[in-house]
Amino acid sequence: MPTIGQYLIDRLRSHGVRHVFGVPGDYVLGFYELLDHSDLKIINTCDEQGAGFAADAYARINGLGAVCVTYCVGGLKLANTTAEAFAEKSPVVVISGAPGINERAKNPLLHHKVRDFDTQFKVFEHLTVASTVLKDRETAFQEIDRVLHAALRYKRPVYIELPRDMVHENGRADYNPVEIQEASDLQALREALQEAVTMMNQARRPVLIAGIELHRFNLQKELMELIEKTNIPVAATLLSKSVISELHPNYMGIYEGAMCREEVRQYVESSDCLILLGAFMSDVDLGIFTARIDPQRSIAVTSEKTSIRFHNYEEIYLKDFIRGLIQSGIHRREWAAIPHPEPPGPDFIPKPAEKITIRRLFERLNAFLDDHDVVIADPGDAMFAGADLVIHRHTEFLAPAYYTSMGFAVPASLGVQLANSKLRPLVLVGDGAFQMTGMELATVARFNGNPIVIILNNRGYGTERPMQDGSFNDIQPWQYSSIPELFGYGKGYRVKTEGDLEFALCKAREYTEGFCVLDVQLDPQDCSPALKRLTEALGKKIQASKKL
Amino acid sequence: MPTIGQYLIDRLRSHGVRHVFGVPGDYVLGFYELLDHSDLKIINTCDEQGAGFAADAYARINGLGAVCVTYCVGGLKLANTTAEAFAEKSPVVVISGAPGINERAKNPLLHHKVRDFDTQFKVFEHLTVASTVLKDRETAFQEIDRVLHAALRYKRPVYIELPRDMVHENGRADYNPVEIQEASDLQALREALQEAVTMMNQARRPVLIAGIELHRFNLQKELMELIEKTNIPVAATLLSKSVISELHPNYMGIYEGAMCREEVRQYVESSDCLILLGAFMSDVDLGIFTARIDPQRSIAVTSEKTSIRFHNYEEIYLKDFIRGLIQSGIHRREWAAIPHPEPPGPDFIPKPAEKITIRRLFERLNAFLDDHDVVIADPGDAMFAGADLVIHRHTEFLAPAYYTSMGFAVPASLGVQLANSKLRPLVLVGDGAFQMTGMELATVARFNGNPIVIILNNRGYGTERPMQDGSFNDIQPWQYSSIPELFGYGKGYRVKTEGDLEFALCKAREYTEGFCVLDVQLDPQDCSPALKRLTEALGKKIQASKKL
Repeated sequence: MPTIGQYLIDRLRSHGVRHVFGVPGDYVLGFYELLDHSDLKIINTCDEQGAGFAADAYARINGLGAVCVTYCVGGLKLANTTAEAFAEKSPVVVISGAPGINERAKNPLLHHKVRDFDTQFKVFEHLTVASTVLKDRETAFQEIDRVLHAALRYKRPVYIELPRDMVHENGRADYNPVEIQEASDLQALREALQEAVTMMNQARRPVLIAGIELHRFNLQKELMELIEKTNIPVAATLLSKSVISELHPNYMGIYEGAMCREEVRQYVESSDCLILLGAFMSDVDLGIFTARIDPQRSIAVTSEKTSIRFHNYEEIYLKDFIRGLIQSGIHRREWAAIPHPEPPGPDFIPKPAEKITIRRLFERLNAFLDDHDVVIADPGDAMFAGADLVIHRHTEFLAPAYYTSMGFAVPASLGVQLANSKLRPLVLVGDGAFQMTGMELATVARFNGNPIVIILNNRGYGTERPMQDGSFNDIQPWQYSSIPELFGYGKGYRVKTEGDLEFALCKAREYTEGFCVLDVQLDPQDCSPALKRLTEALGKKIQASKKL
Repeated sequence: MPTIGQYLIDRLRSHGVRHVFGVPGDYVLGFYELLDHSDLKIINTCDEQGAGFAADAYARINGLGAVCVTYCVGGLKLANTTAEAFAEKSPVVVISGAPGINERAKNPLLHHKVRDFDTQFKVFEHLTVASTVLKDRETAFQEIDRVLHAALRYKRPVYIELPRDMVHENGRADYNPVEIQEASDLQALREALQEAVTMMNQARRPVLIAGIELHRFNLQKELMELIEKTNIPVAATLLSKSVISELHPNYMGIYEGAMCREEVRQYVESSDCLILLGAFMSDVDLGIFTARIDPQRSIAVTSEKTSIRFHNYEEIYLKDFIRGLIQSGIHRREWAAIPHPEPPGPDFIPKPAEKITIRRLFERLNAFLDDHDVVIADPGDAMFAGADLVIHRHTEFLAPAYYTSMGFAVPASLGVQLANSKLRPLVLVGDGAFQMTGMELATVARFNGNPIVIILNNRGYGTERPMQDGSFNDIQPWQYSSIPELFGYGKGYRVKTEGDLEFALCKAREYTEGFCVLDVQLDPQDCSPALKRLTEALGKKIQASKKL
């Protein structure tokens, strides 16, 4: 019979987790020792924040991720990364050590305690979809299974607190995990499908919006089947970018209201039947509310809700709905010319002496990308200009496009490579974001990662300058290309011209033994058309708030 | 009549705040613009975590500090630093931007939102002593004053959320701030004082423990008066170290149960009347519960509670109690020889070729310290060995000795120098902690700080190795002395021998235009006697938890 600590490890393992990110501390050292002797590999990062972002990225690729830290001084550093996982549906298991139950009598002031012993638990209740403190050996196994099930069911983070005197306690000898079966309400499903199919068949120009949940719930194959059967054109959202190969003939591009390419906008908004699958439409996806999506002509199904026109159905699973669509009699039809992303330019011709610009950088990167690259973009122009990159295969564009927390990309590259060692990350990150978490390249070095890190160095917060400028948007200039000397690993390049870029990218493609950092020095006022459109819309919100 | 944003700025200013730490973001840009045009100086850090630690240190020195960030992606990065401020009684005002009230109708998925619009507020309710969302112009001014009063009254962090469409709204024209007067219950105070004075006069060997609240509530002058009047010997706690000059003839040293110097332990524990003033005794202060403090012979007064032997009084202010003691008839007596800290050795003679050790490093630093240095120690041997340094003046030792969050010291040095530009920080930080927040030296560079940063480089988590070792205690080796090249600022030194140390310290004393980083390369197994005692005690807790 396993101990509680061992059972937790076994269950993580059986759900496919192979790496645990974190930073050790005395309240969790006993559990770290168990981890260290298990099949799970501990990836200790520079800071807990880095572990949180890495675990989130790992969970997105792997289907489940885990981060393990000490009480409060470790756990509370994960509040933001856990919030990100919640907002963007990434199933991360947050495991925190804690003072032993037997140490808590008379409420002593143990180090790391904030207010009460359950303060951290209470904080995480707001940031997770299920949470537990394993303080009772009678229920510990059941609690572990309940919480892990919730992570997988809702694709959202969960919280498990493990008081240190419970790690080596035995759970219930007679415990048998119950496989929880959840199914759609069949009658509701039938009615909804019937209605949807009728709408789709009657429509002159149906359009699919493929949302992020298709990726999270592993429904990309079903999406392909549906498209192949019906031939309906499909758009993605910024968050779900690359949920379908961007070279697929039915793929039109990203839809993002007035922020996206005009032809995509026109095609989507003039559709008389919009089928949103697993898409939760944020203000960014809606182009800061410039989108014109008419509910009267929409079918919207997510893991949480099914809406057709103005009415809702309960208890319909996304998977069942999509499978239902595939099996139903949707007519396959041919459609007039649909928009397509611009194909990657094989004919990019560098002008070696020209100063590098955002536009030319991304044109070059578009030609540079190959089948084993995964693009990881930090919020800012890294993400918005990055949206125009053409992604070849499934799910190779990773960005916190809804929660938009800066500092995600560098630690995420660590998580991505550990989840799938065949992928080489192309990290796109602003200089401001790099200063937040870039030191996790030390962890990348420690575990032999080889991302290509493109720092969009415009000497400050380029997303904010167009909205409201001030010296608070400036940051200290770093010699980013000297980072390899600091960590004793990798290569660094300073890129001022197109010739520099050409040289650095060639070197980076050749050099696979470590990371490459490209310090791409841009004009502080330079930005992509996509970012320009976005910051104009966001800037209006700020100006509007002043006039009230 | 000021706007709500302007009123907040005015009130911060009138409570002595001159700097606001933070990172901008779109929901807070309107308020940043106001700040930028005010007397308050914005100090934007690399990461919000750095801003939080800096604001905490600033608050400890200045009496009030402020950090201002954007919604969730900024605010939630402050959960840990705010918890630290709560645990160690540091009055930090956390100001967060937020979506406008008028943007929240129909609950849209605005970027940065986690679960509900009030998720961040709910998180901070657990981490602060008062919190508010300024969503009503009728009450906004009053709310600002209520919350700031709580920060000053309890010396703990508070939370103010400012929806962006409220920044430029007017508050109530007829609002008059009410000066809140709080006073001790005079009858309770009289009885408690009478009882305390009787105990103290009857005692053969009374001893004072001067706690951190004497610093936080600005009662150090009162402490000096009390000591001068009564001649009672005094000890400090690790958290309150330097609350009294360590060269004062009545000062014995740090009391910390079995962890402290034996002679201090004996003197304190054999006292027949222990007067604990403003001391909240944590597990570290109690030497991991090796302390033998007999409540039967104790008087313990804090801002929260007054206890004499086994009974408690309510509504007695610490300040009133100490002033009462000064004015009451406590006999001044002479005492037998009391312990004293070892004086700083002026006769430290370096052995240039000897490999540097923790013991010799701290002996040397003890002689190095001068009157304008402030020691800032990160948890670990930086703090525990640092405890033996002799601090010359008031409050020049700053360490998170109770909450013990790693990564405090480097950003704290930024806060300290801005709060008091006459102080030069000597930062003691482990290599593990440095990897968490050391990049904030870039912010130090941007705002022209000149700390001397001593990195205790033992290639990993030295506090944990003796408790439970594993590869998770190893970290990537950095070339710390090359950091000046990365930031284009400061000087770096590699220290392997006593000769290297001598050279680097001399250079650091001369060079005041920027920071100096000393990479002090220690044996990974080397640690101070203080840390050895502590990790043995902590290690026993871990072993005990395994046997349960």
